[in-house]
Amino acid sequence: MAAAIALGERGRGLTAPNPYVGCVIVQDGRAVGEGWTRPGGRPHAEAMALAAAGAAARGATVYVTLEPCAHVSARGPACATLLVDACPARVVIGVGDPDPRTNGLGIERLETAGIEVITGVLAHEAEHSMAGFFTRLRLGRPRVTLKLAMSIDGRIALASGESKWITGEEAREDVHLERARADMILVGRGTWETDRPRLDVRLPGLEHASPRKALLTTGGPVEGFVRLSSPQAIRTLSDVNDLLVEGGAETASAFLAADLVDRLLIYRAPILIGEGKPGVGAIGLEGLADAHGRWALTGTRQLGSDTLQVYERQRDVHGHYHG
Amino acid sequence: MAAAIALGERGRGLTAPNPYVGCVIVQDGRAVGEGWTRPGGRPHAEAMALAAAGAAARGATVYVTLEPCAHVSARGPACATLLVDACPARVVIGVGDPDPRTNGLGIERLETAGIEVITGVLAHEAEHSMAGFFTRLRLGRPRVTLKLAMSIDGRIALASGESKWITGEEAREDVHLERARADMILVGRGTWETDRPRLDVRLPGLEHASPRKALLTTGGPVEGFVRLSSPQAIRTLSDVNDLLVEGGAETASAFLAADLVDRLLIYRAPILIGEGKPGVGAIGLEGLADAHGRWALTGTRQLGSDTLQVYERQRDVHGHYHG
Repeated sequence: MAAAIALGERGRGLTAPNPYVGCVIVQDGRAVGEGWTRPGGRPHAEAMALAAAGAAARGATVYVTLEPCAHVSARGPACATLLVDACPARVVIGVGDPDPRTNGLGIERLETAGIEVITGVLAHEAEHSMAGFFTRLRLGRPRVTLKLAMSIDGRIALASGESKWITGEEAREDVHLERARADMILVGRGTWETDRPRLDVRLPGLEHASPRKALLTTGGPVEGFVRLSSPQAIRTLSDVNDLLVEGGAETASAFLAADLVDRLLIYRAPILIGEGKPGVGAIGLEGLADAHGRWALTGTRQLGSDTLQVYERQRDVHGHYHG
Repeated sequence: MAAAIALGERGRGLTAPNPYVGCVIVQDGRAVGEGWTRPGGRPHAEAMALAAAGAAARGATVYVTLEPCAHVSARGPACATLLVDACPARVVIGVGDPDPRTNGLGIERLETAGIEVITGVLAHEAEHSMAGFFTRLRLGRPRVTLKLAMSIDGRIALASGESKWITGEEAREDVHLERARADMILVGRGTWETDRPRLDVRLPGLEHASPRKALLTTGGPVEGFVRLSSPQAIRTLSDVNDLLVEGGAETASAFLAADLVDRLLIYRAPILIGEGKPGVGAIGLEGLADAHGRWALTGTRQLGSDTLQVYERQRDVHGHYHG
């Protein structure tokens, strides 16, 4: 299943609104077919893996990160049907598909056909891998990642406005990787007017993964950008699983005040700035007690002399937030 | 030598202005004497270890973190003389003593007596362990550690002033341990007026290690506090190796603006505060280029849900600062 999750990750940022599923078919201890959701969402991982396995899928064990879909679309048959036709002995599933068109129906169809089904294998890891898809289906909006490049003391620019560069090259390259993993990047009007950022992926071989762009503004539209008038308007982005918010401070604060950030990427440079532009402005906090319990540090990486710290918004299994 | 350094650490915060030296005497692969600088600075580590070893020191190997002192004091004989009298075969030294009363004379006396001397063993580690002592002798002032308990976004209090608590219990206990390791704690007048902090060590068994206290103020004296009118006045603290600056933001900024901070302890809580009191104010930075290269992250520890990050001011072997 870990291999299937890793295969699925190949589609990250390229398949929305579809999840990026991974699939491995094993016959006699040997992988006879591998698949992952292709750019644009089709073919599905199972279809690709079954095509690779051919007749070897008969009697095999299929590992798939998400419950196979049960619904026929104009773009292809249901994976549950494809699997039944291929006659594997067993299908091992990471996590159930919350899509109402499937949601248990995929498993039911397999079992009805006499295929053994095992569910919940590395379920947490599979769901975490496809967190954007699950957030969209459960909360009706994309999963929001907020990126901030800050000094030790939480500044993103000098008082003069100078902000190039807080972090070093390795950290900035990592941001491009995060862009490639997102379905859409958002900046505020101020950042757009001041910096005219290209917001594309400038890593060799990943140029094709540059996501769509959005602008948070109450003003008029800008060519090439989806216009959002408020953080809440992300609910209209029905085909976006993962949204990366890149700044500036006003935009970051607006998303945080609306409690619409799921993940924080703090690229921390080993510098002190002192008086300058804070990375986060007013977020409507009334007391310290309200600040605690919301975020947990879930990862740390060293990027040159900078440190990336990943914090995730804490929520319960139903998607309700703690704190 | 690593064992000797660890023994020396027992004296940390208790021996100033003396360094906390460690010493192990090994005869036939067995430790026959251990010593460390005692509270108040005497007996010295070598004297304690030699007393424990007795006649077993003859022909033994002595490991000592700092060059044995060559100067007689009213409080005891020179360790180099004690060692010559004990007739070990070999003395292994971590790092030379920059004190002008010794500075090579200790080694010379041992070699003149026919004792083999090996120097520079774990020199970097030995010097780092006694960094406060070396800073005082080289730069004529204590080594300054600045502690800041901050949110992800660099705030130390809400706009309302609420600051209890940013960090959790484990982080606050670690601060008490840092107090025990310091020779003196300093706060600003504002922090004193507002919080009336006790600034003592409230860890079971370490109450005796509460350091002396200093107040940064242009106003009148306060009972129980050494009064300093500016950060530069730390040069008058001739008997302090390690000074811990605890706040508030104005005091932190004054020390940083004067480039008189050697070590930053950032206790980072996993919370966002937004508008509030920044941990660092104006520090006289003119451009981002000047901010880079000064600090390096040298350690990270998880303390409950908080993270401690230690940054050290980068300087060359002569004590000159980079950046």
